[in-house]
Amino acid sequence: MKNTDLQDYSHKRFNILTGEWVLVSPHRAKRPWQGQNEAVNNEKRPTHDESCYLCAGNTRINGEVNPNYKDVFVFTNDFAALQNDSPTFSVNDGLLVAESETGICKVICFSPDHSKSLADMSANEIQHVVFAWQREFKELAANPKINYVQIFENKGAVMGCSNPHPHGQIWSQSTLPNEVDKKNTQQLNYYNKNNSSLLGDYLTQELENQERIIFENDGFVVIIPFWAVWPFEAMIAPKRHMTNILEMTNAETLQYAEAIAVITKAYDKLFNTSFPYSSGIHQAPTDSNKNSHWHWHMSFYPPLLRSASVKKFMVGYEMFGSPQRDITAESAVKMLKELL
Amino acid sequence: MKNTDLQDYSHKRFNILTGEWVLVSPHRAKRPWQGQNEAVNNEKRPTHDESCYLCAGNTRINGEVNPNYKDVFVFTNDFAALQNDSPTFSVNDGLLVAESETGICKVICFSPDHSKSLADMSANEIQHVVFAWQREFKELAANPKINYVQIFENKGAVMGCSNPHPHGQIWSQSTLPNEVDKKNTQQLNYYNKNNSSLLGDYLTQELENQERIIFENDGFVVIIPFWAVWPFEAMIAPKRHMTNILEMTNAETLQYAEAIAVITKAYDKLFNTSFPYSSGIHQAPTDSNKNSHWHWHMSFYPPLLRSASVKKFMVGYEMFGSPQRDITAESAVKMLKELL
Ligand SMILES: O=P(O)(O)O[C@H]1O[C@H](CO)[C@@H](O)[C@H](O)[C@H]1O
Ligand SMILES: O=P(O)(O)O[C@H]1O[C@H](CO)[C@@H](O)[C@H](O)[C@H]1O
Repeated sequence: MKNTDLQDYSHKRFNILTGEWVLVSPHRAKRPWQGQNEAVNNEKRPTHDESCYLCAGNTRINGEVNPNYKDVFVFTNDFAALQNDSPTFSVNDGLLVAESETGICKVICFSPDHSKSLADMSANEIQHVVFAWQREFKELAANPKINYVQIFENKGAVMGCSNPHPHGQIWSQSTLPNEVDKKNTQQLNYYNKNNSSLLGDYLTQELENQERIIFENDGFVVIIPFWAVWPFEAMIAPKRHMTNILEMTNAETLQYAEAIAVITKAYDKLFNTSFPYSSGIHQAPTDSNKNSHWHWHMSFYPPLLRSASVKKFMVGYEMFGSPQRDITAESAVKMLKELL
Repeated sequence: MKNTDLQDYSHKRFNILTGEWVLVSPHRAKRPWQGQNEAVNNEKRPTHDESCYLCAGNTRINGEVNPNYKDVFVFTNDFAALQNDSPTFSVNDGLLVAESETGICKVICFSPDHSKSLADMSANEIQHVVFAWQREFKELAANPKINYVQIFENKGAVMGCSNPHPHGQIWSQSTLPNEVDKKNTQQLNYYNKNNSSLLGDYLTQELENQERIIFENDGFVVIIPFWAVWPFEAMIAPKRHMTNILEMTNAETLQYAEAIAVITKAYDKLFNTSFPYSSGIHQAPTDSNKNSHWHWHMSFYPPLLRSASVKKFMVGYEMFGSPQRDITAESAVKMLKELL
């Protein structure tokens, strides 16, 4: 195979972490677009908004008043998808199978400044967010009913975010969600066979090759994985093997924050807009196992494809078949690197 | 477990066809919505639009002129995601794994009438679409390079459909896409163990219970599966065991068309809008195996949640964890049944 084949012809790439495939159609990137355009809102927001239920000092829907917080502020989600105190039950009625699921859902405000997003914050400011993720992860991990902690952010109205105040969420629960379960299996199989970390070995290969690396500092790599699905999907991963975010040194928390600052700022420059995405941290379960096979990482799934208003739709074929992308990972890296 | 538990408390349900879980949060259905609203376009379209590249007699982007078709019209996609004649190659470079993928992509116009959707067509008119699906499936199945045929429709701008003219697509290829591969495995395991069809046995159970059946005729069931993900997701499945759509009798093709007419009309009534969705037919691979474990079915994945303008966002938690829904399958059935 010539390397140009991957830039010219339809093919599928294997995601070593999930065991699934993505269909890549590089020849199709020039298709004209006559479909839906997203609303672009580049309006500058005020630093404080009286009607925002996440701003400091404001009252939330349940009547609680937010403190006058200075960096981050965490509270339990007023409309949690997981209940903490519901009964335990299971359904095993022929081919109907269900299990009760309990958990704790939290909201993390990244800054009291209503006008900002992570892309507008310095690495030092983002480090406070990293510290908050660590504190919450530690507390939830200590809860015997919590076996997995999903940290994530939905940024932008197009990603279902109902409030533009900079914030993320944590949904923690007693069992492993589907995506985590897949990555758990793939990493465990590899670790048992090779006695080394799947993602760690992949990063070593990519760091030699450099073709898909957007940025690196002492501790972290920002990369578009070979198997990326979304047009400008990216991953931040620690260079050394760590199962979860508590294993970072203090210096590494700042290096991690710098990596977040770099990719989110590049995103905003790409289409000259506050770039929407969902991001999430995948890390080891918080059950009683050692989980040495886990190498934690953070991924960004941004929907935009060609401009601030044209997104990639993951619909018909993608829902019933496999995810599909037009622009290749390698082209996306080139575009983002120019913006650093 | 009391049946009310499933209507009151957070739980997860198992999808017997994919082997994955959906998180259900019935207590959360009353959450207020402050997020993005979708544009609603209930404008009546003309029966013929000069600028539409799918209308009869019009010229497409590549210069070809559409015939003056009377019911359905099929052509090869001018911007196919899969190439038919590209070279065969594979990448096996350490942890980079890729394979060339070839295929054939087609577009099927359901009617020359630009103003219609399947919901506005009679069962007799829809039967012509079913016949076209059968003809295309048969032809593609006979191609030794094609081992799977994905028939689907994206309806509505919110589902990435770039042209409102009633049409669907077929992407056919040499290997099994992810979703089909999962269903292949689950059905095969069950068939090997029980010597009967997984979906067939499930339908028998649901037909006795009736709680999730929206509609049935002699040959077909319209059901919201126990494990449905989208708020008003539904499935049409033949009552008798058939591996693919070619096994229908002529009478059954009309019963199938009636089932499509019933569910799409109910959808349009639900929020008084042309109801967007992606639909797809999952059926046996067209490889050289017998595939007796396959029971074909058609699913509808509609995004709307509460009104014509508020959709369910499958974002952060859903992308990194598991799909999540608020309204239960059982409540959704009640709402749709009232509209028949
Ligand atoms: O082929 P179309 O209608 O131009 O495109 C639409 O359906 C395709 C198949 O689901 C998707 O890959 C595209 O993102 C979507 O916009
Ligand atoms: O929790 P929020 O921000 O109200 O809601 C948003 O994120 C959730 C978690 O990804 C999704 O389930 C919702 O569909 C989305 O609108």
